[in-house]
Amino acid sequence: MTPPIVAGVGMTTFGESPERTSRDLFAEAGETALEDSGVPREDVETLYVGNFMGDLSENQGHMGPLMAKSLGITAPATRIESACASGGMAVRQAVMAVRNGEADVALVGGVERMHNMGTAGATAGLSVAADDLWEIQHGVTFPGAYALMAQRYFEVHGGDREDLAHVAVKNHANAANNPLAQYQTEISIEKVLDAFPVAPPVGLFDASPITDGAAAAVLVSEEYAEANDVDDSVTITGTGQGTDDLALQHRESLVWTPATVDAAEEVYDDAGITADDVDFLEVHDCFTIAEVLALEGLGFYDEGEAITAARDGETTADGDLPVNLSGGLKAKGHPVGATGLAQISEVTKLLRGDHVNSDVIADADTALTHNAGGTVATAVTHVLEVDR
Amino acid sequence: MTPPIVAGVGMTTFGESPERTSRDLFAEAGETALEDSGVPREDVETLYVGNFMGDLSENQGHMGPLMAKSLGITAPATRIESACASGGMAVRQAVMAVRNGEADVALVGGVERMHNMGTAGATAGLSVAADDLWEIQHGVTFPGAYALMAQRYFEVHGGDREDLAHVAVKNHANAANNPLAQYQTEISIEKVLDAFPVAPPVGLFDASPITDGAAAAVLVSEEYAEANDVDDSVTITGTGQGTDDLALQHRESLVWTPATVDAAEEVYDDAGITADDVDFLEVHDCFTIAEVLALEGLGFYDEGEAITAARDGETTADGDLPVNLSGGLKAKGHPVGATGLAQISEVTKLLRGDHVNSDVIADADTALTHNAGGTVATAVTHVLEVDR
Repeated sequence: MTPPIVAGVGMTTFGESPERTSRDLFAEAGETALEDSGVPREDVETLYVGNFMGDLSENQGHMGPLMAKSLGITAPATRIESACASGGMAVRQAVMAVRNGEADVALVGGVERMHNMGTAGATAGLSVAADDLWEIQHGVTFPGAYALMAQRYFEVHGGDREDLAHVAVKNHANAANNPLAQYQTEISIEKVLDAFPVAPPVGLFDASPITDGAAAAVLVSEEYAEANDVDDSVTITGTGQGTDDLALQHRESLVWTPATVDAAEEVYDDAGITADDVDFLEVHDCFTIAEVLALEGLGFYDEGEAITAARDGETTADGDLPVNLSGGLKAKGHPVGATGLAQISEVTKLLRGDHVNSDVIADADTALTHNAGGTVATAVTHVLEVDR
Repeated sequence: MTPPIVAGVGMTTFGESPERTSRDLFAEAGETALEDSGVPREDVETLYVGNFMGDLSENQGHMGPLMAKSLGITAPATRIESACASGGMAVRQAVMAVRNGEADVALVGGVERMHNMGTAGATAGLSVAADDLWEIQHGVTFPGAYALMAQRYFEVHGGDREDLAHVAVKNHANAANNPLAQYQTEISIEKVLDAFPVAPPVGLFDASPITDGAAAAVLVSEEYAEANDVDDSVTITGTGQGTDDLALQHRESLVWTPATVDAAEEVYDDAGITADDVDFLEVHDCFTIAEVLALEGLGFYDEGEAITAARDGETTADGDLPVNLSGGLKAKGHPVGATGLAQISEVTKLLRGDHVNSDVIADADTALTHNAGGTVATAVTHVLEVDR
């Protein structure tokens, strides 16, 4: 079992394009990934599609075959849905398919169309990632759920809105030069603190935006890469997954995410590394508090300690552990089914040296991605390594 | 790579239970499968869930973690959606996970809640398995799509409604003694021919019903079975998958299903058998014409030849090649996300000898399942073998 090679990656520009269908977005990202890899489409042996709510946003399920055909691919095609972790979970299936010899070439992509639903429609659509009986029917939406988590964090561990504001400011700064990011703008602490309150303590700039977009990657086996002269510098050396209750009320703690902990344990074991070996990472910052909880669950900080990581400059681009150099969900954007693939795409480019922020981590060889669904009822992680 | 063992199976009664939630149905089927296997729930290392339209029927996505927790399982849990093939596709992921050593014990289940949507709601919900831009927006529903396929079949190959009626009569006869079937009633040719026309030539008894239900299976590795004294008599020795255009109009033929052909080629190759080795099978008879097309695509009949198979008694319980001994989708019922699992559950019991129709195939050792999505834009197949 040899780790799959990331032969190529691709992304649409993330942003607002309500007129573009999922198939249109997916085809662009997939085509870009195929071109980047040099792999001809007829060599693709399996296709995995991450999508969360096409059924609701454009009356379209059964996206496996639809996305395959949008790319002119006839290989077996499978849709994976795990809420906002749909993309990362699709990557996980593709990783397992290639490393186990089920396929020599896998195309994996994620896509989400959201703006056509309107803000209220998208918020309602996103809510089906929560527990209908115990949360949705009682009015819980995700800004509210993460607000509960942030409030509880402040009570248990301390910290305040300004600590969280540093997360948003950092991620916007990272996205400022990223041509694919939805918001290529720096913001100030004051702007975050003064923003419209969505669900206190979550303000407008504590939340990731509604985004249309797609991202994709081509994974190939070592044998295929050797036989076809494919760039084999970046590999996915580990995958991990964790599961928790959908409803917050069924959990022991609002400020500890066992799904992330389980996904971290598995991915480190799988890759044969520890958290200390990770040079930089992309985490699921759907809300600023989510980045804090991710850094603790992944083992980079003790419980209650990550709240000041951005403020202290430890996770900024020039810090010891750069987090979300792409701009993260906050500033790069969060087309939910595509997010896990966007992480793979951005990290691959960062490791290869062809990302706008590659200079920041010029000597790095090991990166981690963390993609979550709901209030982290699903977490999925991958370790990517480069052979420079 | 050794084939996964079907350690246990379970099914709810298929029928009408609009008050039961998906989690309730899934938990019953999963619990039954666990009990049947003797495997403790804490040994489950991965869980796959097949579900098509929970987002639409009960405002519930993200069913992986939800179904895991409904069973008291904390293992990584993943939802697979491939329209009416969602269940079979979930089985395929579980098969690959176990045979490749990614997990020693997988629980795989499928579930669908439909009656709570009402007939019009369920029909509209089901339509998202078709192509929204090229079919749904123009009024195509599945009875209409399969009516086109049946009409075209009659034109190209001959045959008539009475030939198709024999498929319905056969499958009802098979279900008559099946305590889990939705319709445990025999019907006559006259009843089929005189039934309310849904979309000519498809009449009411040419169509599978709207069904609530769930089914599940526990798959384990050979090593686990040996170490834990698990019944290892039934194994899944092959899996296959095929993909085609979602929209009928994009296909070269309305009466030939390349996705089934591809899934058949792969599964025979995977299991090291040919169609001749198959003793009996369950195929996706969502409409009577679908059974005919399946038998041709799977290689049991030449193109245009399967239309009289039921009429000639070749596929009846006492025929040379019994098809849908469970009653099929037509009479056992078709809770779409559960159907692929129901096939595995029924075939396992038929092979083990504890199914009401086991006597019919007392010497059989090899069976095939065929589960399709949409108008066969997805097909997924499995070969099950018993060591008597």
